[in-house]
Amino acid sequence: MKIVLTSLSLLAGLALQAQNLTGYSSDDAKTQVQLEADFRSSINKSRFKTHLKTLTENPHIAGTPANEKVKDYIVKSMDAAGLDVETYPYEVFMSSSPGESLVEVITPEEIVLDQQERALEEDPYSDHPELKKGWNAYSGSGEVTAEVVYANYGTKADFEKLEELGVSVKGKIVIARYGGNFRGYKAKFAEAHGAAGLIIYTDPKDSGFTRGLVFPEGVYYNDSGIQRGSLLTADWTGDPLTPYEPALPQDDKNSPDRLDPSEVGLHTIPVTPISYGAADHIFKQMRGEVVPRKWQGGLPYTYRLQGGSDLKVHLKVDQPKQLTKVFNIVGTLKGKTYPEEWIILGCHYDAWAFGATDPNSGTAMLLSLSETLGKLAKDGNRPDRSILIAHWDAEEHGVIGSSEWVEQFKDELQAKAVAYINLDAAVSGKNFRASSAPSLKTILAEATRQVDYPYTEETVYEHWSRGNEQPSIGNLGGGSDHIAFYMHAGVPSLSGGASGPTLYHTNYDDFYFYENFVDPEFQMGPMVEAVMGTLSLRLANAQFIPYDVVKYATDLEMHFQNAEKQVKGFYADFAGFKASSSAISSLNESANLVAKALKEQLESGKMSKKQAKRLNAQLLALEKSFLNPEGMPYGDWYKSLYASSDPFSGYASWILPGLQYQIAMKDKDSLKAWDMTYAEAILDLNGKMIEILEGL
Amino acid sequence: MKIVLTSLSLLAGLALQAQNLTGYSSDDAKTQVQLEADFRSSINKSRFKTHLKTLTENPHIAGTPANEKVKDYIVKSMDAAGLDVETYPYEVFMSSSPGESLVEVITPEEIVLDQQERALEEDPYSDHPELKKGWNAYSGSGEVTAEVVYANYGTKADFEKLEELGVSVKGKIVIARYGGNFRGYKAKFAEAHGAAGLIIYTDPKDSGFTRGLVFPEGVYYNDSGIQRGSLLTADWTGDPLTPYEPALPQDDKNSPDRLDPSEVGLHTIPVTPISYGAADHIFKQMRGEVVPRKWQGGLPYTYRLQGGSDLKVHLKVDQPKQLTKVFNIVGTLKGKTYPEEWIILGCHYDAWAFGATDPNSGTAMLLSLSETLGKLAKDGNRPDRSILIAHWDAEEHGVIGSSEWVEQFKDELQAKAVAYINLDAAVSGKNFRASSAPSLKTILAEATRQVDYPYTEETVYEHWSRGNEQPSIGNLGGGSDHIAFYMHAGVPSLSGGASGPTLYHTNYDDFYFYENFVDPEFQMGPMVEAVMGTLSLRLANAQFIPYDVVKYATDLEMHFQNAEKQVKGFYADFAGFKASSSAISSLNESANLVAKALKEQLESGKMSKKQAKRLNAQLLALEKSFLNPEGMPYGDWYKSLYASSDPFSGYASWILPGLQYQIAMKDKDSLKAWDMTYAEAILDLNGKMIEILEGL
Repeated sequence: MKIVLTSLSLLAGLALQAQNLTGYSSDDAKTQVQLEADFRSSINKSRFKTHLKTLTENPHIAGTPANEKVKDYIVKSMDAAGLDVETYPYEVFMSSSPGESLVEVITPEEIVLDQQERALEEDPYSDHPELKKGWNAYSGSGEVTAEVVYANYGTKADFEKLEELGVSVKGKIVIARYGGNFRGYKAKFAEAHGAAGLIIYTDPKDSGFTRGLVFPEGVYYNDSGIQRGSLLTADWTGDPLTPYEPALPQDDKNSPDRLDPSEVGLHTIPVTPISYGAADHIFKQMRGEVVPRKWQGGLPYTYRLQGGSDLKVHLKVDQPKQLTKVFNIVGTLKGKTYPEEWIILGCHYDAWAFGATDPNSGTAMLLSLSETLGKLAKDGNRPDRSILIAHWDAEEHGVIGSSEWVEQFKDELQAKAVAYINLDAAVSGKNFRASSAPSLKTILAEATRQVDYPYTEETVYEHWSRGNEQPSIGNLGGGSDHIAFYMHAGVPSLSGGASGPTLYHTNYDDFYFYENFVDPEFQMGPMVEAVMGTLSLRLANAQFIPYDVVKYATDLEMHFQNAEKQVKGFYADFAGFKASSSAISSLNESANLVAKALKEQLESGKMSKKQAKRLNAQLLALEKSFLNPEGMPYGDWYKSLYASSDPFSGYASWILPGLQYQIAMKDKDSLKAWDMTYAEAILDLNGKMIEILEGL
Repeated sequence: MKIVLTSLSLLAGLALQAQNLTGYSSDDAKTQVQLEADFRSSINKSRFKTHLKTLTENPHIAGTPANEKVKDYIVKSMDAAGLDVETYPYEVFMSSSPGESLVEVITPEEIVLDQQERALEEDPYSDHPELKKGWNAYSGSGEVTAEVVYANYGTKADFEKLEELGVSVKGKIVIARYGGNFRGYKAKFAEAHGAAGLIIYTDPKDSGFTRGLVFPEGVYYNDSGIQRGSLLTADWTGDPLTPYEPALPQDDKNSPDRLDPSEVGLHTIPVTPISYGAADHIFKQMRGEVVPRKWQGGLPYTYRLQGGSDLKVHLKVDQPKQLTKVFNIVGTLKGKTYPEEWIILGCHYDAWAFGATDPNSGTAMLLSLSETLGKLAKDGNRPDRSILIAHWDAEEHGVIGSSEWVEQFKDELQAKAVAYINLDAAVSGKNFRASSAPSLKTILAEATRQVDYPYTEETVYEHWSRGNEQPSIGNLGGGSDHIAFYMHAGVPSLSGGASGPTLYHTNYDDFYFYENFVDPEFQMGPMVEAVMGTLSLRLANAQFIPYDVVKYATDLEMHFQNAEKQVKGFYADFAGFKASSSAISSLNESANLVAKALKEQLESGKMSKKQAKRLNAQLLALEKSFLNPEGMPYGDWYKSLYASSDPFSGYASWILPGLQYQIAMKDKDSLKAWDMTYAEAILDLNGKMIEILEGL
């Protein structure tokens, strides 16, 4: 019965969509839609669960033998699926284990604080002998016994507030809660203000009992859950010793010169994360001034700024770092028509522990997708363009594996990569969501119209739209493997999947949690595979690369309007980004002409393969207009004028980062120059549009 | 040095104010301003503290010997001050003590819950042997052992939400937190939904450690603080057995027929309040569904809707009620010119325990004011109108003493009372605030311009304005002794004073708390006395009663606009309150003419005393246009069309209650009729304005 209904809805979809498939003629669209339907009906829905269970049998931190075992499983699976699999080794400056650490209250009474999640009877994974204590990679090594100061989320504003209140952190141990920014900035600001150490904990108000039932009864952190995570905050992304260069192994003849670790501004103070159960032993003994209202968390007493002199805490971290071997894996399904045009999908495979949602729900989905696409190819349906499926290593330490690979193949990627689709933790729940470069938004939305959302009568598109006419697609921020592709190399990127509850970076993010709370019926893995496979095939088989060329102009217009509003907040007389606005108008006109001309060309008949390759190369080049050779003021490795992660918080997305930085600095004087820089980039893009027009 | 500065600022005030003193000619204004300055310099600043300390030596609940002792002290003090003191006894159906009560967890394990605040070493008052356990007056008597259901604040909306969620309270013990409405409504709604009992507690998120440091370290409830309070919710205010009639003692020949207690809809289920420390023993054992996000409180676990079948709670309340003697005290300083025109100031004196802020900071201030005014009279400066200083009893049980007195003297009050000024807990902190009938707003604001705000260089007016051009004056809601004056008898009323931290209705609201947290330097008592004395003298000595006659029209216009906006929320095509709007326009015109004519009359020369008396009677009659003989749909005792307490929550203020009720009911059909009713009242007021004009 279920199968019949599915077929009906697919046919309905067929009729509806054939008219209107970006990058396809009406005739080609019919063939493509049928191919996509065949693809989806070939998905073996049990594979996701099988892969997930195998991938997450053991904790597998980057650089450990356990992670090499996971690598081997991935290589074997992709190979069996029929992809050409390559492994890319690097040697990266990092640590693969917590080293030694200790947090204890010394006075008024000695209490050694727990640093690891307790084993739970319900969860058989939770007493795995290889599980590690909580730790923050790239902590400094050191030891301090001192009074404590609470710094709320440890944001720039929070440390400024402490100064305003006359509370010094100099020589103190700062205790800050997770949230509000990337944890590395908590360490950076604490150290900059003279703190001698930093303890980071998860407050129950942010992610514990105040929010809802805790694990294993619910999906929120219990009193022993600890968020692990990297603290790396260099002016670039990737291995800290080899900016711009791939960190090839030392025995590779192309191994680059490495920076000295002392040169790259790594944190020097000891930092470690704890649970709120452990933090309670510190907080409840604090005796200083009452915190500002918004700093109050969910523990059952009034929070204080200072611990006072009676409360001494001892913090020790000894975390040796060394050159460590890590491995990316890339499987290629070679395109039959345009093998040198690449659709790249990727997810990292290293994890802080088991990584059931983060990242391996994405890995398992990619392995199943490899099998389905492999089967399709074997049956004679090899895609026109190449589809590359990548598994990155050492993402958790600082988005390292993918960044090194992009640095290694930057020129090739800029010439060949049609799109990068990031799938980190892509099947972590039941809410579809996505963030994307403008040119990929339309085709992503179209793909989700083809896929049924499980448990409902809706398509993914409808469910994702939540009753609105269209779904909302976000802007790409920091925090995962699209960074180098998008912000360093200018490859149009998107990140998508299904999100949900999370025991983020704790030892509890395991198969038991997944099976009981994330998706007990394992329906979402196949759904995300169906969406991402449909999208990939559509990108791969379109006669012309199906970018939405108009979207750049419309999105730019909106983002410049926002920027102007923000500028006027500190500079009321600002005359506006006139040069850029005028450039956007021109771009808008040209882009609409290009879209129309492409559509006409598609319907009027085939181009020669040579003509099509030329046109595709032109389309591929569009996004590169946003690459600024000088990079951003806060880090020249970040080349994209269009998007960046927020350099003051790490995770948030900055659109038009050149302007955002001036806005953050409230700098009126540079706005004119940045207007010119942006106008130049937009006019360059406009020039490329006109070239395309002239060629059609 | 301080004195010199004060004099300078007074002189500055003199020059500024003499021009512009509502109800006074320029010449009279000069004399009056000097008199007021003399009054303020006569205040003996130590008296407030002395009275407060004496009044709050023992807990003194209405109907107890301890409260009679307080009554005697008040009578003696007022008498010594030179006022004519009368005592007005009533016999009221109530209980003066908690009776017997018990709250215990029965299963899974028996725990008897604390029902009284623990004694604190720091606070010598806190182990007074006469202190009582926490209780809610007008609880039903009964006993139940049952499962529990959490009902958030126990508002109408909260019980509706429970129904929507499929959670029945039938036969269960409801546990609800204080806040959001008058506690009597929690009991009313719980009983209406079939609950067998109700436990009310104060959540730390609303008033405990989540807000700030707890007593005795700070001003928020500690884990043993219990809010006492009445549950009385009849369709009228005052003694439940004698609506409309004064509850004169049974031995008085005018003692009214009393209703039978079974007729008046008193609560029948047992209800008792507990602390969050006690509530914790119940909450932490609840095992049902997770509450909606906003229902989560500050205790350290996720709140649940149901306790589940393993958790049984035993609640017992045996609270006998009987006719109980209570006493109002009214001291009169007879006016020398218009003795039959009354300025009435009042505050209740009964308290749930010591009552240091609530109410006796108001009582102490009124005793000191009596002394200062008495001294002034003795020195030949008796006011022109009579000033009555009232001390009400049994306010805590349901605003009973004042309501009975208003019922007893309703006709006289409607003919004579110029204003009622309520001073319940009037010196509870350092933030001046006030709510008022429109006609009294201007003169109150003017009076605060004459008084220095302690600890600063500002006047009370400036401090109260908080940097704005004008202070904000609120609308009078429910909850204190102005109700019968304003809403039943139509006497223009205001309520004002200094507010601050509060240990509301706990045993800790004592002199220790006052001295350490409310106003350690005891400067605010004399300040409030200076404001209220200045205001009273200004009201008492003006040639014409100094109402702001224009304010009714301007305030009405605003309130009708608000009401229209609210109506349009459920009735988009609503044509507006056309009849009322047109009436307000006429009123606005006439009122401005009256204001102008009064000013001219003042400057042009004296009226005869007879003429002035006639004019004052006309002014006094203005507010009575808002009295609607049929009363409000939710209770015919509430006569004012202008203001009421919200019948669904008890405390909040309803302006234009006839309309507010229809809005709450989303009843489109009656709006037209209410428009006519309001238009009639406003035209009646307009007619009185025209009569005044014609007489001038």
